[in-house]
Amino acid sequence: MTTEGASSDGTTEGVSSEDTFDEYADLGATTENAMEIAETSMDRVRKLVPQETIADRIRGKSVHATGDPEFQHLVRFTGPTDDAPVRAGARAVLESRPIVTDITMVKAGITGRGHDCPVRKAIGNGAELAERTGMTRTAASVLELDREGVYDDAIAVIGNAPTAALALADCIEDGTRPAVVVATPVGFVKAAESRERLRAVAAEHGVPAISNVGRRGGSGLAAGLTNELVHVASDVRDGSIDAEWAADLR
Amino acid sequence: MTTEGASSDGTTEGVSSEDTFDEYADLGATTENAMEIAETSMDRVRKLVPQETIADRIRGKSVHATGDPEFQHLVRFTGPTDDAPVRAGARAVLESRPIVTDITMVKAGITGRGHDCPVRKAIGNGAELAERTGMTRTAASVLELDREGVYDDAIAVIGNAPTAALALADCIEDGTRPAVVVATPVGFVKAAESRERLRAVAAEHGVPAISNVGRRGGSGLAAGLTNELVHVASDVRDGSIDAEWAADLR
Repeated sequence: MTTEGASSDGTTEGVSSEDTFDEYADLGATTENAMEIAETSMDRVRKLVPQETIADRIRGKSVHATGDPEFQHLVRFTGPTDDAPVRAGARAVLESRPIVTDITMVKAGITGRGHDCPVRKAIGNGAELAERTGMTRTAASVLELDREGVYDDAIAVIGNAPTAALALADCIEDGTRPAVVVATPVGFVKAAESRERLRAVAAEHGVPAISNVGRRGGSGLAAGLTNELVHVASDVRDGSIDAEWAADLR
Repeated sequence: MTTEGASSDGTTEGVSSEDTFDEYADLGATTENAMEIAETSMDRVRKLVPQETIADRIRGKSVHATGDPEFQHLVRFTGPTDDAPVRAGARAVLESRPIVTDITMVKAGITGRGHDCPVRKAIGNGAELAERTGMTRTAASVLELDREGVYDDAIAVIGNAPTAALALADCIEDGTRPAVVVATPVGFVKAAESRERLRAVAAEHGVPAISNVGRRGGSGLAAGLTNELVHVASDVRDGSIDAEWAADLR
């Protein structure tokens, strides 16, 4: 069906009035109205999560990604300060380190703008290992990429699979050092536990990490938090970030 | 780094014991342990959402996808009964209707198994319309695909963009008839309102729809609910679903 001809709510195609399309703007934000309304959305989030520290950028993004104001209290930062893993993540983006996601869906959610980081996914690797051992394909894919050295100095993102988070924790225990870990697997079997273990191992070995507590989480959240690291890096690059925040990032 | 040599928690690579890799099983579920634990996960969900109706399959999946037992109460079914849109969705899968998602991330989350539906995304279409009018790219992409007739009889999935949901509502108002709509856009600007409008328009024009109330939602949820339609269809196909439920679906 077409949208030609005036409909009752202003979706007439080809009309030049800008106001006509107000309702079609959101966070896709390459078009005029889209960018206006993206800003409205972030304004609302900033009222829910006052932006007082650089870690608050991540807390705010968690609220934005989940649509839930309370989610800010479920985010955890592993490092000497809450800001530290966010700084480490932004620095890794500025250094164009690889972003390595667990599954295709998380990779699909990583923004293409504001960074030169290669983006790759783990899933699809390690099939032989999975078949031989019975471990999950995502866990095997993490172990396989780790064997190739992919996770050292990388931005390691686990959005879906608890077993991938557990595998990454083992890799860290065995000596791998990602630049930063973003881990938000979701669900009822080992999701919370896998993040707990990842936090413990990351803390022990000095690996900066951003994660959450509880059963919630998922691919959209992981992609959103990673994209916020890219946004912080962009703000550092173009000088629009608070100078104190950016102090060790230029 | 490698995982060779025994580590403290049994992630030794190349060990033949099946038990060794228990911790690496989740819902990726093509490997042995993965399938066992996927079943554990769904067992836990079934305790939280007793499976008494076919609509409960969708409620359960919403809990599974969000990791939140309370989410079952936020799901809404548009149709003569709660079961009706689930049946319509399963029927559309059995008829191999196209699955059309709003964005790439939702498309990436649609299972490749259990159906022969072509899967495509809207985003990437309608660029000229977006530029000319200032509407969002996702909204323009829906209007453009609709002009090509893509949404009639399709499984229309909106996981991310409120403006895409509003655009689809306009298309339905103008005569388009998807086989079923799955709509779970997330966020603080028009997400809840876009779903409300979509439900009103769908109800008025007899289009079956599955959606949620509130600000929460997102790509993972949309993909999960759509995949559950595929699972229901698979159960109908292989006869493992309750005969009464499957009555008008064979």
